[in-house]
Amino acid sequence: MKQPKFTFQLLNQHKKARLGLINTAHGEIRTPAFMPVGTRGTVKAMLPESVKSTGADIILGNTYHLMLRPGAERIAKLGGLHKFMNWPHPILTDSGGFQVMSLSNLRKISEEGVTFNSHIDGSKHLLSPERATEIQHLLDSTISMAFDECTPYPVSFDQAQSSMELTSRWAERSRNAFIAKPGYAQFGIVQGSVYQDLRKKSASVLQQLDFEGYAIGGLAVGEGQEIMFKVLNYTPDLLPINKPRYLMGVGKPADIIGAVVRGIDMFDCVIPTRSGRNGQAFIKSGTLNIRNSIHAEDDTPLEHDCLCPTCQNYTRAYLHHLVKVNEILGAMLMTWHNLFYFQDLMSRIRDYIKAGKDFDFIS
Amino acid sequence: MKQPKFTFQLLNQHKKARLGLINTAHGEIRTPAFMPVGTRGTVKAMLPESVKSTGADIILGNTYHLMLRPGAERIAKLGGLHKFMNWPHPILTDSGGFQVMSLSNLRKISEEGVTFNSHIDGSKHLLSPERATEIQHLLDSTISMAFDECTPYPVSFDQAQSSMELTSRWAERSRNAFIAKPGYAQFGIVQGSVYQDLRKKSASVLQQLDFEGYAIGGLAVGEGQEIMFKVLNYTPDLLPINKPRYLMGVGKPADIIGAVVRGIDMFDCVIPTRSGRNGQAFIKSGTLNIRNSIHAEDDTPLEHDCLCPTCQNYTRAYLHHLVKVNEILGAMLMTWHNLFYFQDLMSRIRDYIKAGKDFDFIS
Repeated sequence: MKQPKFTFQLLNQHKKARLGLINTAHGEIRTPAFMPVGTRGTVKAMLPESVKSTGADIILGNTYHLMLRPGAERIAKLGGLHKFMNWPHPILTDSGGFQVMSLSNLRKISEEGVTFNSHIDGSKHLLSPERATEIQHLLDSTISMAFDECTPYPVSFDQAQSSMELTSRWAERSRNAFIAKPGYAQFGIVQGSVYQDLRKKSASVLQQLDFEGYAIGGLAVGEGQEIMFKVLNYTPDLLPINKPRYLMGVGKPADIIGAVVRGIDMFDCVIPTRSGRNGQAFIKSGTLNIRNSIHAEDDTPLEHDCLCPTCQNYTRAYLHHLVKVNEILGAMLMTWHNLFYFQDLMSRIRDYIKAGKDFDFIS
Repeated sequence: MKQPKFTFQLLNQHKKARLGLINTAHGEIRTPAFMPVGTRGTVKAMLPESVKSTGADIILGNTYHLMLRPGAERIAKLGGLHKFMNWPHPILTDSGGFQVMSLSNLRKISEEGVTFNSHIDGSKHLLSPERATEIQHLLDSTISMAFDECTPYPVSFDQAQSSMELTSRWAERSRNAFIAKPGYAQFGIVQGSVYQDLRKKSASVLQQLDFEGYAIGGLAVGEGQEIMFKVLNYTPDLLPINKPRYLMGVGKPADIIGAVVRGIDMFDCVIPTRSGRNGQAFIKSGTLNIRNSIHAEDDTPLEHDCLCPTCQNYTRAYLHHLVKVNEILGAMLMTWHNLFYFQDLMSRIRDYIKAGKDFDFIS
């Protein structure tokens, strides 16, 4: 069998917005792409074929969660994450850098990496550029991420600089540890907080390591949309045009659209899945809380013209009932609608770029 | 459109085991039939089309739960339970008699009925033969159950007798309150505990009311399989051969087989769904607890020759992981397998009766 190469084709560009196609060992990814989050080897409350049916080409897996349970070596023994979770399509894994800081206990950061205690059983672990890269190799991740320190916000220039420099040194070690395979990729992560000079320096160092793609990290961490867009006004331009650009952890529909306009190709966020489980539905006019008693006898779907299985078969009244009594089917149907909504948004975005039109559907 | 009649055809009989076909306003039911339980308007963790795909012709809904949330009048306003939950096939509803005794607080039983406080918000409600029948009418239940008192176990002859007599009087009032519609049915419930004379008397009184079918109540309440089978040795014979016989709340595969052998046509039980959510899988050799660490690296399916979507696509190792970390997909996949297992059991049972063979697969 011919091994496919990892490639990125820039198919069309409208102003800074890019229409692209990534080819990988596990299939194609249409960009701009939204990656549903499958933290612990499952996109919560969804069958993988249902995730695919919403239009998702790629999902995200979390190194931190999977290394703790069921363990990277175990997943490798069972044939890798694709086979383990019955998702034969592309998977991007984060490096664990973000979660180890936000979830674990008793962290100690050194030049070597981060030692931490599991938030589950307190057991001691090390994440380093080498180990994070090895774990992602064991998971058989289609797109691995370099191990980085996600710079917190707000942060001083000096702190942002030393954090970015650590990420740069870790990026080089990650790159050296990466075992290249046809159709697989590793992305570097640009840090530098809100400081243009630091973003510039970070992007420059990473490009010398010739990653297959580049992520922008350290955003969507509390700085707000205005500041995020300000950073996105210049950071994508610091990256090569012939490689995919991934904005980590973003976001709401308006964030995604604003980032596409500024030259971003890939996104991931827990918002559609987490919101769905909490009873929040995304609709074209905004969001809707299905717990609200206004929906108790409403026999219309979440969105009247939505083609998702939830809207085709179930009323707001039924979803209201399910979510109020905490039935699993409520989480299933609300999540399905939201994932469909996000993929439909990406599809509309791609259509607009292809047609060379400005986005007029969400400001 | 021609309104279908509610009919029961006895297609074949092998010793006391019966192969039948029930026709209803909402479609056919192959008997012996197992009805998955959809307590609150959903078979937990399952899409309705997935329930149907396992081979289920009919599901059960709970009057007690639905009258409290979302309310019978509300479901009626929304077009009935079939439409509300997207299950266009037959639905049997219990009368609420069992749950009101096991779940509600501050019950008071009188000749009129049962007044009780909701286990959810403490609100006061009445269930009487007339109200229970009205609720089931509002739900648009295909098969309604007469309102009964489920006699507890163990119980003295005198107590069992007065309880059975109350059920008989309530049966008459339920029958009078029932609004007959083409293709719809109401079943009476035979009580009498473990006392043959009382079962005989109960069956005789109920038959004078000419229900469309008959249930056997007051079993599977702690008496054990041996005593249950003893009661089933004579009770089905007290019922007309040309009407379906339903054993309420049963059961495990061996219970079902033992009851079919004794002339029962219909069953319902939460076992496959509840067990699934708790990580217990039914397999031909018995049951399997997927939480057991023996499964952590087992790359075989729950059952090697099972054709359910879970066994076709997922390993024990993956299910072990999902259930251990309490992922919703674990509940979904385990439930799906168990419901498939139960329907496959019913299908094998029907094949054996058709072929005139003794059951040799479970003793």
